Amino acid sequence: MFPPEIQNFIDAFSKLPSIGPRMATRLSFFLASLPDHEQIQIQEALKGLERLDRCPRCFFVKSRTQKLCVFCADPKRDAHIVAIVEKDTDVFSIEKAGKFFGQYCVIGELDHRNPLGDIQKQRLQKLKNRIIEELNESPGEIIIALGPNTFGDFVSELIRQGFKGISVKITRLGRGIPTGGDIEFADEETLRNAFDGRR
Amino acid sequence: MFPPEIQNFIDAFSKLPSIGPRMATRLSFFLASLPDHEQIQIQEALKGLERLDRCPRCFFVKSRTQKLCVFCADPKRDAHIVAIVEKDTDVFSIEKAGKFFGQYCVIGELDHRNPLGDIQKQRLQKLKNRIIEELNESPGEIIIALGPNTFGDFVSELIRQGFKGISVKITRLGRGIPTGGDIEFADEETLRNAFDGRR
Repeated sequence: MFPPEIQNFIDAFSKLPSIGPRMATRLSFFLASLPDHEQIQIQEALKGLERLDRCPRCFFVKSRTQKLCVFCADPKRDAHIVAIVEKDTDVFSIEKAGKFFGQYCVIGELDHRNPLGDIQKQRLQKLKNRIIEELNESPGEIIIALGPNTFGDFVSELIRQGFKGISVKITRLGRGIPTGGDIEFADEETLRNAFDGRR
Repeated sequence: MFPPEIQNFIDAFSKLPSIGPRMATRLSFFLASLPDHEQIQIQEALKGLERLDRCPRCFFVKSRTQKLCVFCADPKRDAHIVAIVEKDTDVFSIEKAGKFFGQYCVIGELDHRNPLGDIQKQRLQKLKNRIIEELNESPGEIIIALGPNTFGDFVSELIRQGFKGISVKITRLGRGIPTGGDIEFADEETLRNAFDGRR
């Protein structure tokens, strides 16, 4: 019943997180009725994401044209304090809380069937090298900012073991975050408390 | 804090209906992390919408390469019965109900401050010509499928007046649809009842 262009759009966009077929349908009609220059603006915005890759130091997103991400490139960020997070969006939530001025290590989404997969191991190894090379004479701290739930506890313990023998303080976010919750959705005040109460 | 590509995406996509800044942020990271070929597939799906315009006869969306929309081009659809709807998505809901086999006139989204704007007037004029030219010897029916609320009643009355002197039966959808509701969100059963109970 729909022109193939609409059907294609619905098929492609209804696979995206939080967009079901119904929302994709409405979006398609809305977008189709926009004037050409606005459609092109939105196309360009989407196409821009192609020009992203990951920081070779902390694995947060960055433009391909930049050598490092904004945090690793910023001399005002404290390289002695590193927060280990799962996802880019966790970085976003932590930055909004405005309480943390260190740097990051984004280890990638965790899989319950394989708590530390190849990607996680590679990225943590990179962090280890970074600490050994850069922080050999200064104390340093790693804040494990994973969700305060059983799985997060388990993965944190694995990470701790992996850093055995390296002189670095390892902490976790304080239990300001409701147990069972998700870092990405924590409110800013809770996140601030969690940075204060880390132990 | 974000690469400009992410910020651009958030700015452009958070203006779309039902997508706020939070969802746009999550979408951007999700899309950025897709492999290139999947990103391109989604880009193409979006770009395809550019190839759409409106049927010159009923104003429903169609591919630019087609002369008429699927309904106007289909000889099995009854050209003597025309449903006047506001939006493309209303057509979608009505088709899903599987009860209506006539054709359409999509008059475009109504503005409460200007119930029949220029676009609506042009499209209704076109419908009038269509009825005079095509249905001069047969009875014909116009079903006004606007929302069953005060505003819809008002606009329906304006439309009725506009068709005075033309020998065509004018009906509205039966009150199966909850008063104050929206055609787009009516369930299929309610829409079927409404087609039965028109008067």
